[in-house]
Amino acid sequence: MKKAMNAFYAQSGGVTAVINATACGVIETSRKNKQAISNVYAGRNGIIGALTEDMIDTNRETKNTIHNLQYMPGGVFGSARYKLKGIKENKVEYERLIEVFKAHNIGYFFYNGGNDSMDTANKISIMSKDMGFPIVSLGIPKTVDNDLPITDNCPGFGSVAKYIAISTQEAALDVASMSKTSTKVFILEVMGRHAGWIASAAGLVKKEKADAPHIILFPEISFDKKRFLSKVKESIKKYDYCVIVASEGTRYKNGSFLSDTGNKDAFGHAQLGGVAPILAQMISKNLNLKYHYAIADYLQRSARHIASQLDVKQAYAVGQAAVEMAIKGNNAVMPVIKRTSNKPYRWKIDKTDLSKVANKEKMLPKRYISKDGYAITKSCRDYLEPLIRGESYPPYEKGLPKKIKLKNISVRKLLNKKFMV
Amino acid sequence: MKKAMNAFYAQSGGVTAVINATACGVIETSRKNKQAISNVYAGRNGIIGALTEDMIDTNRETKNTIHNLQYMPGGVFGSARYKLKGIKENKVEYERLIEVFKAHNIGYFFYNGGNDSMDTANKISIMSKDMGFPIVSLGIPKTVDNDLPITDNCPGFGSVAKYIAISTQEAALDVASMSKTSTKVFILEVMGRHAGWIASAAGLVKKEKADAPHIILFPEISFDKKRFLSKVKESIKKYDYCVIVASEGTRYKNGSFLSDTGNKDAFGHAQLGGVAPILAQMISKNLNLKYHYAIADYLQRSARHIASQLDVKQAYAVGQAAVEMAIKGNNAVMPVIKRTSNKPYRWKIDKTDLSKVANKEKMLPKRYISKDGYAITKSCRDYLEPLIRGESYPPYEKGLPKKIKLKNISVRKLLNKKFMV
Repeated sequence: MKKAMNAFYAQSGGVTAVINATACGVIETSRKNKQAISNVYAGRNGIIGALTEDMIDTNRETKNTIHNLQYMPGGVFGSARYKLKGIKENKVEYERLIEVFKAHNIGYFFYNGGNDSMDTANKISIMSKDMGFPIVSLGIPKTVDNDLPITDNCPGFGSVAKYIAISTQEAALDVASMSKTSTKVFILEVMGRHAGWIASAAGLVKKEKADAPHIILFPEISFDKKRFLSKVKESIKKYDYCVIVASEGTRYKNGSFLSDTGNKDAFGHAQLGGVAPILAQMISKNLNLKYHYAIADYLQRSARHIASQLDVKQAYAVGQAAVEMAIKGNNAVMPVIKRTSNKPYRWKIDKTDLSKVANKEKMLPKRYISKDGYAITKSCRDYLEPLIRGESYPPYEKGLPKKIKLKNISVRKLLNKKFMV
Repeated sequence: MKKAMNAFYAQSGGVTAVINATACGVIETSRKNKQAISNVYAGRNGIIGALTEDMIDTNRETKNTIHNLQYMPGGVFGSARYKLKGIKENKVEYERLIEVFKAHNIGYFFYNGGNDSMDTANKISIMSKDMGFPIVSLGIPKTVDNDLPITDNCPGFGSVAKYIAISTQEAALDVASMSKTSTKVFILEVMGRHAGWIASAAGLVKKEKADAPHIILFPEISFDKKRFLSKVKESIKKYDYCVIVASEGTRYKNGSFLSDTGNKDAFGHAQLGGVAPILAQMISKNLNLKYHYAIADYLQRSARHIASQLDVKQAYAVGQAAVEMAIKGNNAVMPVIKRTSNKPYRWKIDKTDLSKVANKEKMLPKRYISKDGYAITKSCRDYLEPLIRGESYPPYEKGLPKKIKLKNISVRKLLNKKFMV
C-alpha cells in the first residue's frame, strides 16, 4: 500500500459565500481517509502560501471548527488574486511550488477557484511530473460569476443568485409602495463583468408582466440608450415605477463599458463599478424621474446569511468529490455538477479534464435572454430556479451570525530559502 | 354604549421592513374589538388615499392574509411622501380630510410614520374638534432612522440595524481574506441624513480592536479629511485592510454634505447619495489603495428576510397598542417603546403626547460616539445590541420569500367632489 501523503488546499480569486463549505468538504473527507491523506495544509492567502512556504496546519483545528466552516463567508485561510504565468515565462515559480510540496511531502494539490486557477492546477500537474515529483493536482470549481464551462453551475453562484433575487423583490416592493409621490426608478447594480448570470437571477422575481424587474441589463446585450430610455418610460406609464437590474459589465455596441474607472486588477481586467449612477443620471436628465440606486458589490458575494441551501450542499460536494477522486488516482481533473433532471431537479457529481476548463468563460446563452434583451426566458428560469432553493441559516449569537475563530497555526518551515512574490 | 365607528389607517414616508407588521397589529386588534371599530379603511398611498377618498376595505382580506402582512416588506397599501401644510396655509386639505372621515363614519385616525406625520396627526385631532366631528387621532411610530424622541427606539430601526451589522460583518470577512493581493479598503454607505443611528449599528460587529469596521462616519461628527486619511493609513498598516461604514449624511465642518446631488425631495430635504465614491476617490488619490464600495440604499430598509425578531414584535405591539389606546379614549397620543431594563433587556409600551414628538429629531448622543469620533462606545453597544436580537424568517416558496397578494378592494366613494393633490 502507498504511504499516506499530505494535501495542499488553496482558495483562489474572489471568495464566495460558500467557498468555506468546500474547504469543509475537502478537510472532512481527507480526515476520513487518513490512509491516503495524513494532513491538509491550507495556503495562507492562497497560492502565495505555497510560494512563501506559509501553510496552515488544519489538523490543529477541532472537528467542530471544521464542521462550522460551512457557515462562514469570506475565505478562512485567505485567498489571493495571483495568477502564475506560463511555464516558459516563469518557470521559477512552478519550480518553487514543487520544491515546497516535495519538502512537505505534499502529494495532492487542490486548487479552489475559477478558470484562471484551473489553468494553474493543470500546469502543476504537468510540471511536477516533468520534475520527477508527480503531484495529483485537482481543480475545485468556485465562482459567483457562474462562468465555468462544462459544470452545470458553479458553487457560489446559487447563493449570490438568491441574494440578488431576494434583494430585487424586497426593494421592488418598497419602491412600488412609494412611487406615487417619491422614487419612480430604482437601479440595482450587480456583479458580472462579462457574463450576465448574476443579473439573470433577478429575473426569477418577475412572475407576471407587471412585476419587477422591468429591465435587466446583460453584458451580452449591447446597451442602446434610446431603446433603454423608451423602455423605462413605458414601465413608468404602465406601472408607475421601474426597477432596473444592471450588470456592472453593461456595455455599448462598440464594446466600451458604461462605466470604466480606468483601473485594472492583478489579472489585467478593467476594474468596473458605477454603472448604476451613470444610468441614474441618464434617466434623470432625459426623463426627469426621481431615482435611487443600490450597488450590492461585496455584500452580494459574502451574504452567507441567506445562502442557497443547494449551493451550500454542492459546494461541500465538490470538495468531497475532489478528495475522493484524487485518492482514486484521478489527476488533472475537476469535479463538475451535472444536472440529470430538470423537473424534478436532480444532480450528481461528475468530472472533467482541467484542460477543458482552463481559461474558458461560459456566457449566458442567447436562448436564456428574451427577444427584447431586457428579461430572461422560461428556459433560463427553469435553469436558475433550482439553484436558489432552500435556506441554510447560520447559527446566531446576540443577533449576529456566529463567527468561527480558527487557530490558523503555521506549518513549520523546512526550507531556508525565502521566496519573494 | 357608543356605536362602533370605522378607523382609518395610513402609512407615511419611507417604508420599513416591518411597517406591515404594524398594519397587522392595527387590523388584528381592531378585528378583536368590533364593538368599537367596525372596519379599518387603509389609505391607498397613505394620506393621499384619504384626500382623494381612495380607501382600501381591509375587512375584505382574510384572517390569513392579515396575519401574513408581518412578513412583507414595503407598504402593502402604499405610502406617500406628502406633508400637509400648516392649518393656516392649507385649511382646505384638513377640511377635506374631515369631510371624507365624516362621510365614511371614521372616528379613529391612525397615522404610521415619522415626526412629520406626528405633526399631521396632531393637527387632525385639533382640527376635527374645531369642525364639530372630533376624531380620535393617534400616531404610530415608524422610521428606520430611529430619530423620534421619547420612544426608546423606533420600529423599523432594529431590522435595518441588523441588516447593516450583518452586511458589515460578512463583507469584512470577504475583504480580510483578499487584502493581501486585492482590495484593501471597503466602504459601505448607509442611510442616515442627520442622525448616525444606522451607521452606529455597524459598530456592533467590532468586538476586538482589529475587527471591522475600522472607521464609522457619523453625520454628528464633522468630517476631517486629513484625520480620516491618516486613520485609513493606520488601519492598513496594522491590519492590512480597512472597512469604513459611512452615513450618507457625512458632512464637513461648514455643514456641507460630502455628497449633495442638488436634488430635493417632497419635504424639501436635500437628496443625498454617493458619499462612498467620494471617499473612495479620496483614498485612491491620496493613498493609492485598491477600494471597493457598496451602497445599500433601499436594500437596507426593505430587508425583511433578515428582520430583527424584536423589531417585528415591537412593530406589531405599537399597532396593537394604538388601537387599544384609542378605544380607551386616548387622543393625540403616540405609543412609545419604553426600556425598563437593560440587562436583561426588558421593554413595555407607554404613550406620549403627539405634540412632544412632532417635528423633532433625536440625534445619536455624544456619549454613544467614541472620543476619536470613528467608533461607538460601550453604552451605545448596550443600547443597540438588544434591538437586533432574534431572527424572524419569512416563509419561502421556491427559494424566494412568499409574496402575499392583497385584494386591496376600494371602499365605495360617497362624495361627488373630486380633490386634486
